[in-house]
Amino acid sequence: MRTVGSTDLQQPSAGMADTAESQKVVIVGGGLVGSLAACMFSQRGYRVDLFEYRNDPRLSAVSQGRSINLAMSRRARAALGLVGLEGELLRHGIAMKARMIHDLEGGTREIPYDARTNQCIYSVGRKFLNDVLLSAAEKRSNVRLLFGHKMTGGSLDEGRVEFERTEGGTGGPKAKVKAVEAVGDLVVGCDGAFSSLRRLFMKKPMFNFSQTYIEHGYMELRIPPTADGEFAMPPNFLHIWPRGEFMMIALPNQDRSWTVTLFMPFAQFEAITTEAELLAFFGQHFADAVPLLGEDALVGDFFRSKPQPLVSVKCRPYHAGRALLLGDAAHAMVPFYGQGMNAGFEDVRLLSGLLDGLGGSPAGLADVLRRFSEHRNADAEAICDLAMYNYVEMRDLVNRPSFLLRKALDNALYAVLPDVWVPLYNSVTFSDMRYSECVRNRVWQDQVIRGVLVALLACAALLGLVAFVKA
Amino acid sequence: MRTVGSTDLQQPSAGMADTAESQKVVIVGGGLVGSLAACMFSQRGYRVDLFEYRNDPRLSAVSQGRSINLAMSRRARAALGLVGLEGELLRHGIAMKARMIHDLEGGTREIPYDARTNQCIYSVGRKFLNDVLLSAAEKRSNVRLLFGHKMTGGSLDEGRVEFERTEGGTGGPKAKVKAVEAVGDLVVGCDGAFSSLRRLFMKKPMFNFSQTYIEHGYMELRIPPTADGEFAMPPNFLHIWPRGEFMMIALPNQDRSWTVTLFMPFAQFEAITTEAELLAFFGQHFADAVPLLGEDALVGDFFRSKPQPLVSVKCRPYHAGRALLLGDAAHAMVPFYGQGMNAGFEDVRLLSGLLDGLGGSPAGLADVLRRFSEHRNADAEAICDLAMYNYVEMRDLVNRPSFLLRKALDNALYAVLPDVWVPLYNSVTFSDMRYSECVRNRVWQDQVIRGVLVALLACAALLGLVAFVKA
Repeated sequence: MRTVGSTDLQQPSAGMADTAESQKVVIVGGGLVGSLAACMFSQRGYRVDLFEYRNDPRLSAVSQGRSINLAMSRRARAALGLVGLEGELLRHGIAMKARMIHDLEGGTREIPYDARTNQCIYSVGRKFLNDVLLSAAEKRSNVRLLFGHKMTGGSLDEGRVEFERTEGGTGGPKAKVKAVEAVGDLVVGCDGAFSSLRRLFMKKPMFNFSQTYIEHGYMELRIPPTADGEFAMPPNFLHIWPRGEFMMIALPNQDRSWTVTLFMPFAQFEAITTEAELLAFFGQHFADAVPLLGEDALVGDFFRSKPQPLVSVKCRPYHAGRALLLGDAAHAMVPFYGQGMNAGFEDVRLLSGLLDGLGGSPAGLADVLRRFSEHRNADAEAICDLAMYNYVEMRDLVNRPSFLLRKALDNALYAVLPDVWVPLYNSVTFSDMRYSECVRNRVWQDQVIRGVLVALLACAALLGLVAFVKA
Repeated sequence: MRTVGSTDLQQPSAGMADTAESQKVVIVGGGLVGSLAACMFSQRGYRVDLFEYRNDPRLSAVSQGRSINLAMSRRARAALGLVGLEGELLRHGIAMKARMIHDLEGGTREIPYDARTNQCIYSVGRKFLNDVLLSAAEKRSNVRLLFGHKMTGGSLDEGRVEFERTEGGTGGPKAKVKAVEAVGDLVVGCDGAFSSLRRLFMKKPMFNFSQTYIEHGYMELRIPPTADGEFAMPPNFLHIWPRGEFMMIALPNQDRSWTVTLFMPFAQFEAITTEAELLAFFGQHFADAVPLLGEDALVGDFFRSKPQPLVSVKCRPYHAGRALLLGDAAHAMVPFYGQGMNAGFEDVRLLSGLLDGLGGSPAGLADVLRRFSEHRNADAEAICDLAMYNYVEMRDLVNRPSFLLRKALDNALYAVLPDVWVPLYNSVTFSDMRYSECVRNRVWQDQVIRGVLVALLACAALLGLVAFVKA
């Protein structure tokens, strides 16, 4: 059944190889994390074959991913810096310095991301980012990009992956399917939340796995540039319409349009069945956005598309045999902390750090995989949990006085004690602190605040008692 | 590729059928839950085809399952009663009225399962139970048992399942593989923790799933009958050697032997590499059991086998298209509450109850699946969690004074207020209370006890204060 490809895909480097140059890395998935990993490995001297299910995305105008822009922050920047691409992507990105909260009456207020040092997060187009990374990988002589390859099976222990390659375009009646096999000293699964490589992990004993869908779906809408070609809203913000059980957000694009995303329970999406219901719903909850979206475009977009599910995936360990999972394949999260891509890119940077200490022997490589798995799991699960929690914060808590009070207190303490009191959002978004450490830090802050409150109450009671006795 | 079987497996009943008699149920898996489900459906008039991966277990002397005895309690009995088999299995089972705790010095003490009404749990052989259920199903004219069928694929929406059947014994060089397809109005997956049918569920959107392995494995040992053919320990007990991080248990068998199971962290199993280490370990922790196990047999059993993993599986929903998951396929749990089989059998009883209210139409069937899924999920997840918790109780807490005090308090209150204060273990083991309700009930009891303690402390403090002021 299996046909050997015309290329030398089947010639693995010798298992005994002891330098990076003679070692082969097979990457499954040419999305953001896969293409960054290809750059990183090739830079370290490994020979890299990257297999991607889709055709070359650079040849198509439309992004095939569903989420078309991303919030790049410190962790992604650090990883891009590693392969010399941080500058290019920062120039492309649109800085967002604050959340801009839209209330029901159309009023707005800002909540800065970093009140102390004014750091920003950057809205970056997924397609642009992917194209840049693929082209950067392709420039290197030791990287081959192989598109149109669908993974069908393999062996983690042997570092072998099987693909089906469709010749002459995918799926057409004249398409001929060809079986291809690749063998690497290392196989890296960067094939996303529904990873095919992970399916081989599922057959291994002691592999823990969970996938959890939330009851909310999302739908993308669009605010076009104004008639004179400008942004229809202030561009250096992530706009949020928090409405308790649901919310809408908007991120700016290079072409001065906005990608608008509505997050809402599926039941609520389904309850809207007519144009009139849709316009009444938007009129009630997002009145200020309706003229920007345009009624016709809104109706068209809404009824043309279906709300998409949101899934959170955890697993452990990330390695098995000669294989390793990175990015969404290892830890897919709901998008509410803007850390999915950041965490995936950080995987690549951390792995690179572990490879620094490696002589290049396959035995050493096995040790690196084990150490990556052990080190990264708690952090990846922490950010998955934070992302789930942040949905409540974004759609609801930002409207509450208690949240705003805490934010003010955090910012005040952060201004006075910048090394001691880093608020949770800042440590996650603008530092390299381990995600699990960010959470522990926050728990400690909560304890301190509770302790101080109790002490203050006790003092007040004591003072009252003293005053009472004196009187 | 697919060959049609010589039987009429491919002739589904018409989709429009509106009586049970004309409807076909395809059951995947002929273990305990599958064979009970076959009895239940056939009793209700459905035509049942049961497909089992193994060859007919009744033809082999050795049980192919790993865990060879089970603790049958109220929920399993109620479900067996539904198909007229409770009496037969109770006669076979060996009543266990209490836990018998073995301390390090070989001393024992009893902790009754039901101090108030002396209800027992029953040790039943897995093979015997499975054989009885298969034979009961086979007796019915509307049931066909099809062994040696390995599920390979199918469609949940079409109620279609594909199998490979090995002719002339499994795996032999002359074995010929034949593809078989079955279509049912309903497909029921009773194929265990690593369910093949569930793999089709995994491809459905919004299917939540988790599998969690614990860090402990188990190994089965055996205490044979004494030289004069008697039980080597008092038979009407579940014997436990709780040792904190690990434990050993023993359940009585019909042949007067004991099945002994050692639960222990994998690392600890691996640390024992020589006969001397093994005997030193047993001498230190299970001294009184060594002469009963026999040193030679212990050494032989221990080094012949490998510790087996323990997995907890949750998923939601249990239905998709025309298919439903039952038993371990829907909710596999660690074995520490003795409820895995009980919960699986209760699935069958609950499903039967829902079918009572059904006219027999396929539309009604779809509604039953949905309602089963919605009703059962919280309860199944509650018992999965309780089973995980009970490992700590069995191996460690039973040694603690606080546990014994609470047990005494629970039993005293239960004796006085049998309708109001049912201890957790009793509600799980000796009632039909929903598992989730058992947990809520326990939370309420904890609150009451805490409240009473606080009130008592406050009273004591007040009395002290009054005494102080008077003096």
